[in-house]
Amino acid sequence: MPIVTIQQSPRSIELKRELVEKITNAFTEVYQLPPEAIQIFFAETSHENWAKGGVLASDRE
Amino acid sequence: MPIVTIQQSPRSIELKRELVEKITNAFTEVYQLPPEAIQIFFAETSHENWAKGGVLASDRE
Amino acid sequence: MPIVTIQQSPRSIELKRELVEKITNAFTEVYQLPPEAIQIFFAETSHENWAKGGVLASDRE
Amino acid sequence: MPIVTIQQSPRSIELKRELVEKITNAFTEVYQLPPEAIQIFFAETSHENWAKGGVLASDRE
Amino acid sequence: MPIVTIQQSPRSIELKRELVEKITNAFTEVYQLPPEAIQIFFAETSHENWAKGGVLASDRE
Amino acid sequence: MPIVTIQQSPRSIELKRELVEKITNAFTEVYQLPPEAIQIFFAETSHENWAKGGVLASDRE
Repeated sequence: MPIVTIQQSPRSIELKRELVEKITNAFTEVYQLPPEAIQIFFAETSHENWAKGGVLASDRE
Repeated sequence: MPIVTIQQSPRSIELKRELVEKITNAFTEVYQLPPEAIQIFFAETSHENWAKGGVLASDRE
Repeated sequence: MPIVTIQQSPRSIELKRELVEKITNAFTEVYQLPPEAIQIFFAETSHENWAKGGVLASDRE
Repeated sequence: MPIVTIQQSPRSIELKRELVEKITNAFTEVYQLPPEAIQIFFAETSHENWAKGGVLASDRE
Repeated sequence: MPIVTIQQSPRSIELKRELVEKITNAFTEVYQLPPEAIQIFFAETSHENWAKGGVLASDRE
Repeated sequence: MPIVTIQQSPRSIELKRELVEKITNAFTEVYQLPPEAIQIFFAETSHENWAKGGVLASDRE
């Protein structure tokens, strides 16, 4: 632990690379954990599979 | 909040469009929430990745 | 399937009773599924364990 | 119930077939449940979408 | 990885102790993984927070 | 979106307060998102409900 699952729209590997580094640093600084203890999973969700306010995101585009 | 995650077999966008509307209405009516407060995620799972009774769904077809 | 997981603030059993009925009806109408196929899980989250905009909900009260 | 969600790297259907049988047997033996009560979902995650120690798995290959 | 999340009714620590051993063995045998690679989380759900067929489990008791 | 769910051992509100701020900042910097777009859920798990290497964490204490 901790296991972090992020539900989000698809994004580039560059952005994800940068994000996981910052999130892992946040855990190591605040919880004083070794970086290897932290695992991060991206559950990427297309806009056909995500809705807000009763409307699919793909229908808002 | 509320965040709704639905694990299900893949379905058409028409069905998902209709479903998210009805589910969002259920929340707004019962919880008296604004529709924008409700997010719905479909975690679509192929039949090779879902098992019931110890058997993959794809092996039951 | 479908398995529905709802992350939300704690609410009364009366509200949850009403909500699960409406959500299940949405699935049976739209997906033409028998009600028994639908399972709903409430993952109730206290305001100390939920943050939006970088602030714990309990700190906004 | 029980609903089992497994976040893992992609694997062959043969391995998943064998795994779901063993996991379902574990539940039926220990919890004395009928096999049909147990559902298993594989949430397969590519190495671009999984990080450990602040590094994407795809960057460790 | 793999990370296993089990949504279930509350059960005794003895049963959970036995179950996690059997599930971990299933992974090590089938996936040829070291046991330490497998993490299991119980997301225990009370019967007021779980519904099937549109009815809360606590209302079926 | 993004919705972040963190499975972890129970921790103090002070640590969680600090962590959610840092994680939200990571998203706003890297994804150029407004802070209000990010929601974080702690799924706190007691050591009786988490196992690694086939052993409950509470049995390792």
